[in-house]
Amino acid sequence: MQRPNRLSLWLFSLTLVALISVPIRAAEPLASWNDSAAKEAIIEFVKTVTDKDSSGYVAPEDRIATFDNDGTLWTEHPMYTQMAFAFDRVRTLAPQHPEWKTQQPFKAVLENDLKAVAASGKKGLVELIVATHTGITTEEFEAIVTDWFKTARHPRFKRPYTECNYLPMLELLQYLRANEFKTFIVSGGGIEFMRPMTMEVYGIPAEQVVGTTIATKFEMKDGKPILMRLPEINFVDDKAGKPVGINQFIGKRPIASFGNSAGDREMLQWCSAGTGPSLKMLVFHDDAKREYAYGPANGLPDSPFGTFPQDLMDEAKESGWVVISMKNDWKTIFAPEKE
Amino acid sequence: MQRPNRLSLWLFSLTLVALISVPIRAAEPLASWNDSAAKEAIIEFVKTVTDKDSSGYVAPEDRIATFDNDGTLWTEHPMYTQMAFAFDRVRTLAPQHPEWKTQQPFKAVLENDLKAVAASGKKGLVELIVATHTGITTEEFEAIVTDWFKTARHPRFKRPYTECNYLPMLELLQYLRANEFKTFIVSGGGIEFMRPMTMEVYGIPAEQVVGTTIATKFEMKDGKPILMRLPEINFVDDKAGKPVGINQFIGKRPIASFGNSAGDREMLQWCSAGTGPSLKMLVFHDDAKREYAYGPANGLPDSPFGTFPQDLMDEAKESGWVVISMKNDWKTIFAPEKE
Repeated sequence: MQRPNRLSLWLFSLTLVALISVPIRAAEPLASWNDSAAKEAIIEFVKTVTDKDSSGYVAPEDRIATFDNDGTLWTEHPMYTQMAFAFDRVRTLAPQHPEWKTQQPFKAVLENDLKAVAASGKKGLVELIVATHTGITTEEFEAIVTDWFKTARHPRFKRPYTECNYLPMLELLQYLRANEFKTFIVSGGGIEFMRPMTMEVYGIPAEQVVGTTIATKFEMKDGKPILMRLPEINFVDDKAGKPVGINQFIGKRPIASFGNSAGDREMLQWCSAGTGPSLKMLVFHDDAKREYAYGPANGLPDSPFGTFPQDLMDEAKESGWVVISMKNDWKTIFAPEKE
Repeated sequence: MQRPNRLSLWLFSLTLVALISVPIRAAEPLASWNDSAAKEAIIEFVKTVTDKDSSGYVAPEDRIATFDNDGTLWTEHPMYTQMAFAFDRVRTLAPQHPEWKTQQPFKAVLENDLKAVAASGKKGLVELIVATHTGITTEEFEAIVTDWFKTARHPRFKRPYTECNYLPMLELLQYLRANEFKTFIVSGGGIEFMRPMTMEVYGIPAEQVVGTTIATKFEMKDGKPILMRLPEINFVDDKAGKPVGINQFIGKRPIASFGNSAGDREMLQWCSAGTGPSLKMLVFHDDAKREYAYGPANGLPDSPFGTFPQDLMDEAKESGWVVISMKNDWKTIFAPEKE
């Protein structure tokens, strides 16, 4: 056999470098999307803002895309994932709180009575959050959440909640990032509940997650600095809070925003009000067979988790916001389950 | 002349790709630093956390570095830049407020009486901020700040405030980023005062700036969504607020933190308390000739802007925080003035 000469070695190493340099892209972007107006809208928008010869060109540093989480990136039924976490936490902590057996909303949680929990209203919800999310350090909370994600399973899909995210939306995140967008989560969910999983599930690092926050306090404990989670909600990142959160955490107006409920209306309005082109989309849950169907737009049943009233549907139509039909626009809902 | 054959064209394009792939690095990093313990500490730390064979290796996504701004990245004397902005704003708005001629702290500002302004205390400062920073939209405020940076000049250095930043620190930011660090500002200054200039001055995008925030409110005005700046301070990103802000905005503990005053103590403590290696540094202003000298550590005069008390110097020594002497460790303070 002939020894490889220096030229061929050199060629070989150049080829390696060239191969490494090619950005990794899926063979077909948005492969789980049917060929529909929704898919077309995404591709056209990305083409416009990335084309230097287009009047709608946007510099990469301003390609900010914000995504709601519950119902937009992952399932929010039969209840918000964070609520399932809070319920499990009540069950775990119940032996230390015998009084919960007779005290609402804890009694309702222990009896799995979702209606009675709902009846306890906002006050009950805050009590649940305070009891299950505070009075511990940020490090302790992170460890608890991380553990919970490993073991908890969605009641219908029998898989980890972290695998109940939508494959078409994951492809959308990847497609935008491949086109030099910076992708953010802007969710009503707790920021420290989401951060332990966003990198693994969505490829979104902790510093690109905006959410509802609990007040924290810096303290020295045994000579070590800690942040205690206080029994107080600091900021609610929902509805009119979303533009506030975007401005505070990101400081730039998104050119693309994605939501699925009345909680996302103001974020989409804020996104719309920029000077250049912008893309606004709402995921509509009309697929009871593969996921869930709720509205009450289009006559679907109302839901306390991710309500989509008729006037939101009307505003979407009037404002050129694209409504994604899960049933018609998505070939697949979830990725195949991991081993 | 022979036409280039396909192989040579192919070689040529591969070579181009290879050249493009080489990361662009400065010929010598930290060129404005004297060969000192401080410079050595930076280089050793970066070597440790980027060396995959080191027990102190840190994955790129966790290479978070936080920088105070006033006195750490740019000059904070004779007063904080944002205070100079507020003073100018009082002068601009004075014709609409004849009552300011007799009303403190405005009277003091209009008479350039810094002592009387200081005597008005925290209450006076908040009044100044409310009068000059709120009651307008976020967009209006951004435009005002952007304009001010274009025209205002530092009283001693006679150059734009945006050119009163320290060249050695700029090189440090670049050096860290070249080593896959993500650089953040974590400052007591107003987040929306800093964001209009951080990209141009430091290469730090708006979404990597943490600071003190004014409360804002989402409103519809003439059918257009706006964010109004309310007369209320929402969050003070100073002292024990810095770890709180870091946790809230970034969600990861920094492995490197840089400050220059008692306001940065808790940030450095928080940085220290991680599990792996960390670098903590304090810029000490001991160079009256080229910049300013104040302390009161080491017997330098005290200052309300960037106080460095003796117990901070003691804690630095005990805790292995590196104190940077501007006088001894920096070859140059500022970059040559721009044309």
